[in-house]
Amino acid sequence: MNKVLNSDKKIDAALAHLADVVDQRRDAFKAGQADPKTSYTALLFSKGDDAILKKIGEEATEAVMAAKDSRSANMAIEQQKLLIAEMADLWFHCLIALSQFNLRPEDVIAELDRRLGTSGIEEKAARKASGKE
Amino acid sequence: MNKVLNSDKKIDAALAHLADVVDQRRDAFKAGQADPKTSYTALLFSKGDDAILKKIGEEATEAVMAAKDSRSANMAIEQQKLLIAEMADLWFHCLIALSQFNLRPEDVIAELDRRLGTSGIEEKAARKASGKE
Amino acid sequence: MNKVLNSDKKIDAALAHLADVVDQRRDAFKAGQADPKTSYTALLFSKGDDAILKKIGEEATEAVMAAKDSRSANMAIEQQKLLIAEMADLWFHCLIALSQFNLRPEDVIAELDRRLGTSGIEEKAARKASGKE
Amino acid sequence: MNKVLNSDKKIDAALAHLADVVDQRRDAFKAGQADPKTSYTALLFSKGDDAILKKIGEEATEAVMAAKDSRSANMAIEQQKLLIAEMADLWFHCLIALSQFNLRPEDVIAELDRRLGTSGIEEKAARKASGKE
Repeated sequence: MNKVLNSDKKIDAALAHLADVVDQRRDAFKAGQADPKTSYTALLFSKGDDAILKKIGEEATEAVMAAKDSRSANMAIEQQKLLIAEMADLWFHCLIALSQFNLRPEDVIAELDRRLGTSGIEEKAARKASGKE
Repeated sequence: MNKVLNSDKKIDAALAHLADVVDQRRDAFKAGQADPKTSYTALLFSKGDDAILKKIGEEATEAVMAAKDSRSANMAIEQQKLLIAEMADLWFHCLIALSQFNLRPEDVIAELDRRLGTSGIEEKAARKASGKE
Repeated sequence: MNKVLNSDKKIDAALAHLADVVDQRRDAFKAGQADPKTSYTALLFSKGDDAILKKIGEEATEAVMAAKDSRSANMAIEQQKLLIAEMADLWFHCLIALSQFNLRPEDVIAELDRRLGTSGIEEKAARKASGKE
Repeated sequence: MNKVLNSDKKIDAALAHLADVVDQRRDAFKAGQADPKTSYTALLFSKGDDAILKKIGEEATEAVMAAKDSRSANMAIEQQKLLIAEMADLWFHCLIALSQFNLRPEDVIAELDRRLGTSGIEEKAARKASGKE
């Protein structure tokens, strides 16, 4: 584990809490209590599905580019931090999308846990891959 | 919170544990102890950066399509489950990418937590958005 | 214009002809005259919308990575050729998507031409950008 | 061929001409003769590689969503037009990326023509697909 970058913070509280905050802002927007002009989250909820979803495609591309940059820089600490920041952007917009569709990160993690717990990740991914191309 | 779908499981253990498993498979592959022919994760690590990163773009697109399908189906439970499955695919490949670059989900969550803790998500996102287009 | 790489071939005939070929393969598949086991194009048509569309997200990501590689290599000729190959992959799958939706590249080019002819590209893009973020 | 939407315009002149216009704007920007504040194309060139490339990921996602919408609407004419518009956005940003890397759409079309002329599209794509997953 990278000693410089990795955090000791518990991630459960952070991820669930972050989803709570996103949901609160969604609800505040719907209640007319959050201004799209001053809140980026409210702005996205005001624009709806497509504006939220296209950010996933955009941020995925930015995360990929940051990873390429990090490799080119031999994973220098500054580039690694930028990669983390872009991955955080991607996950943040995933959280907004989940909120928009009344879902929670717990749902996603439970699905991953379910696949893992039954050794299913390998099998499902392999099955999916074989049927894909 | 969606009563039907949402899990009560703690998400921290699952996410950190999942990253541990991915890291173990990465290390097993590097040690010649995981066969790309039988392990999808080992296959991805054997192919390297670009094969891993392009999956992020592919799975992001699939998550977006699943979201569109869910909306078209008025968020029927079956479509919601497919959306969760696609988001799980996206996050799973993000975990593989993080492992490939010697990073951990704790890094990403800490970054999100840092932004949230300082009320920074809104500010940073807004600043970023204003400078983007 | 890059003397080494750029072709003197007329691009109209090639693009329209390529779309004709894609359409012919689509129709051959629908008529049961093209085998998904031996024809990649028939395979995609046999899988339907999502399999075709996700390739656009995947190939877009690969084109972006190839561009990053080309810059890292100071646009060395071999990297430039790989970038062209990835862009060709992206456009090829766009042609398949257009065929799947009964559209033609002429429609897309006409739209671009319309925007250009009325100086509309700049205006529309700027208007779109301002409303996006 | 769709009688309502498809254009009779020659696509060669339009595509090459469009690339010429993009190149001219790139050169004008480099010469300090195009203002990023009033020209969207100049704005993109002023921001550089990543800003241009991430638009490919973003517009690819938007094109995919427009295709999904068109299918949901049974390919109603208005949705088909929106799909064409999004595909035009994607191709426009591909043209900007090509210009940024000193390449031309003729290069891409020649590559596609080369694959087609030698029946290579099917073979290369099939070979690539089989090696991908």
